[in-house]
Amino acid sequence: MKAEIICVGTELLLGDVVNTNAAFIAKGLAAIGINVYHQAVVGDNPKRLEKCLTDAFAENDIVITTGGLGPTYDDLTKETVAAHFGKKLVLDEKSLEQIKSFYDRTKRVMTDNNIKQAMMPEGCTILYNPNGTAPGCIIEEGGKVAVMMPGPPREMLPMFEHQVSPWLEEKFGGEGKLFSKTINFFGVGESALEARLHDMIVEMTNPTVAPYAKPCECQLRVTARAEDEQSAMALINPVVEQIAEIYPDNIYGYNYQTINEAVVDVFTKKRLTLCTAESLTGGLIAQKLVEISGASAVLKGGIISYTNEVKHGVLGVSQQILDEKGAVSPECALEMARGARKLTGADIALSATGVAGPTGGTEQTPVGRVYIAAVSEKGEVVKELNLSRGRADDREMIRNYSASHAHNMALKMAKLFE
Amino acid sequence: MKAEIICVGTELLLGDVVNTNAAFIAKGLAAIGINVYHQAVVGDNPKRLEKCLTDAFAENDIVITTGGLGPTYDDLTKETVAAHFGKKLVLDEKSLEQIKSFYDRTKRVMTDNNIKQAMMPEGCTILYNPNGTAPGCIIEEGGKVAVMMPGPPREMLPMFEHQVSPWLEEKFGGEGKLFSKTINFFGVGESALEARLHDMIVEMTNPTVAPYAKPCECQLRVTARAEDEQSAMALINPVVEQIAEIYPDNIYGYNYQTINEAVVDVFTKKRLTLCTAESLTGGLIAQKLVEISGASAVLKGGIISYTNEVKHGVLGVSQQILDEKGAVSPECALEMARGARKLTGADIALSATGVAGPTGGTEQTPVGRVYIAAVSEKGEVVKELNLSRGRADDREMIRNYSASHAHNMALKMAKLFE
Repeated sequence: MKAEIICVGTELLLGDVVNTNAAFIAKGLAAIGINVYHQAVVGDNPKRLEKCLTDAFAENDIVITTGGLGPTYDDLTKETVAAHFGKKLVLDEKSLEQIKSFYDRTKRVMTDNNIKQAMMPEGCTILYNPNGTAPGCIIEEGGKVAVMMPGPPREMLPMFEHQVSPWLEEKFGGEGKLFSKTINFFGVGESALEARLHDMIVEMTNPTVAPYAKPCECQLRVTARAEDEQSAMALINPVVEQIAEIYPDNIYGYNYQTINEAVVDVFTKKRLTLCTAESLTGGLIAQKLVEISGASAVLKGGIISYTNEVKHGVLGVSQQILDEKGAVSPECALEMARGARKLTGADIALSATGVAGPTGGTEQTPVGRVYIAAVSEKGEVVKELNLSRGRADDREMIRNYSASHAHNMALKMAKLFE
Repeated sequence: MKAEIICVGTELLLGDVVNTNAAFIAKGLAAIGINVYHQAVVGDNPKRLEKCLTDAFAENDIVITTGGLGPTYDDLTKETVAAHFGKKLVLDEKSLEQIKSFYDRTKRVMTDNNIKQAMMPEGCTILYNPNGTAPGCIIEEGGKVAVMMPGPPREMLPMFEHQVSPWLEEKFGGEGKLFSKTINFFGVGESALEARLHDMIVEMTNPTVAPYAKPCECQLRVTARAEDEQSAMALINPVVEQIAEIYPDNIYGYNYQTINEAVVDVFTKKRLTLCTAESLTGGLIAQKLVEISGASAVLKGGIISYTNEVKHGVLGVSQQILDEKGAVSPECALEMARGARKLTGADIALSATGVAGPTGGTEQTPVGRVYIAAVSEKGEVVKELNLSRGRADDREMIRNYSASHAHNMALKMAKLFE
């Protein structure tokens, strides 16, 4: 089964908005076995969109559009696609109700042009939109399928995940359903995984094994098609165990989005608390935990000790260590973590000190040199990292990797607690 | 002048990589007056790419590709485009030298397939690549222009900015050059700006006025075409002044990327220091400053006081305020800022306390209620924000807006210092 993705929006053409929708949809389609060979971006222009539609349907069975479903006169995707199929637009009362209630809920006044959003192609499947005013829809005719979704990612993403993907899966997915398990890796790269597990990735068909790179970490998704979850897991688990044996030190968990989510989850389950003492990361270690809802049960607090003054005055790092070993030293990292733990009373304290660059590096402590430490009643660890790749944009990478290494260290320390 | 952007790469089609190149190039082309009406993504497949090229040149004068210039057998963009123009590939000695020296510099061994990267279409303009091994090139023939650049953004971005954009500007840019000034707004939305300044945005031609939305803030870019910078500014400045009169309270600066960059710049110039006391933002106020190189001269440090224990024990917020007014109160925000200033000795202290949600809201302090404060020798301010829009993904928005409001407050407080 082949699909094309057409993203509609002048803001995409002008480059004011990066097109994250296409990647999200392409990945979602791949997961249910639908191939994408072409993606297009067009403006809010019916003539050009119609040309794109004709070209796309000449080569594909399914066309998925995002954008152009809004209330203004230049939102014309629904009108253009309906015309392509020779269908009229008719008022859908339920859509209108939902748009009205959305305006009531957000205490705004609905204007007349919003009624346009409730006009739907006759005979279509309506995709109701709990996160905005524009409903999506699916037209199915003569073996061709057009799926239209709104452009804003926070409306499109849940619509695709909860409505479009299951609809396509049911229609085109073949027998059984897809189930998967994600293996979360830290400290090993996607290309290394691909090289080591090449045969598995290329040759296996049920389950399949697919690597995904994320910032600072990567994942393998093991996916099986089966009648029910239990049968799928019977196919998936032996493969997962085989991979786990190959990487005893690099798997931090299963089915997490990111390592910070794993920290909040593991610490919550173990009823452990955490605090941070951050120099080069400037709050990033804590910040990435606070991104996760539920972090308040885990994170007691933290000290951002960007200057030696704060390292000494607030965290209690001794002046001798700062003078003799320097702020970027394993000794300083340990004292920072000890100080934060003492101040906040958390079970485990994490610290990071280093040189993010681009300036400030010396021969002894070059850009990219970072020390991270973890301190708890179970013990103390400190680790030296050398993260520079010699590129102009290393600063952000060095800070992000430092935070992820600290999170990984927190997970390893948490293992020592029952 | 019309251009199409074609991004080549199976990783884009599969959604493993978000296509940031297309937005970057589209924006760069718009800045020199070249219009983009269509963007496409195709895999590393010569037949499909050839079809894209034919379609694109049927409608456009310029086609810009990214990707597919690498050393492996499936990198075929250069071969396909050269064939489209009936051109042979010939070895370019200078490219080969540069590829060899790149391998020497990064202490890796060059393999034979890298020679393929030095094979260039005969008669093309070569775009040498200081950031990677694959050179780009420009083919010009019969009024049509094909520009090929490598796919990795850190190679493509500088190549576009320093080589492709000046080449296109010289060729198609018309008389004079483009100069622009960016007005940075906080606290007014893009659509409000568009509505208020509609006539300017739609009708003016030299200079032009264009709004850009960014997360939590927005910009107007005023761009003029003129012989030199001085003549351009003579066209730009009166328009900027006119807009500044309309928005006396919402312009935080000029020519900044983001408000955190403005804070680091203004504080550096005024030799002011800053510290933070953060509850719901969990380090984000400091974190966004640390993103900016040079932040170490400005940010002394901060306290992440995620729990009342740390608010009282470290920052010294009185137990009475925590008990009677609560942690989410203007009084607590003020005491947090005072405490951080006392601990770090910074000139200005910023604080934020509030409910990011999705849980934890009460009738008295609902989700989205945030207090931010700034404290210095010049005085104390505290502000109540109500940031909820009642959406499932509000948490991230609430925290980001809180941080930006704090930065804006820092800039206003800094104005009181000479």
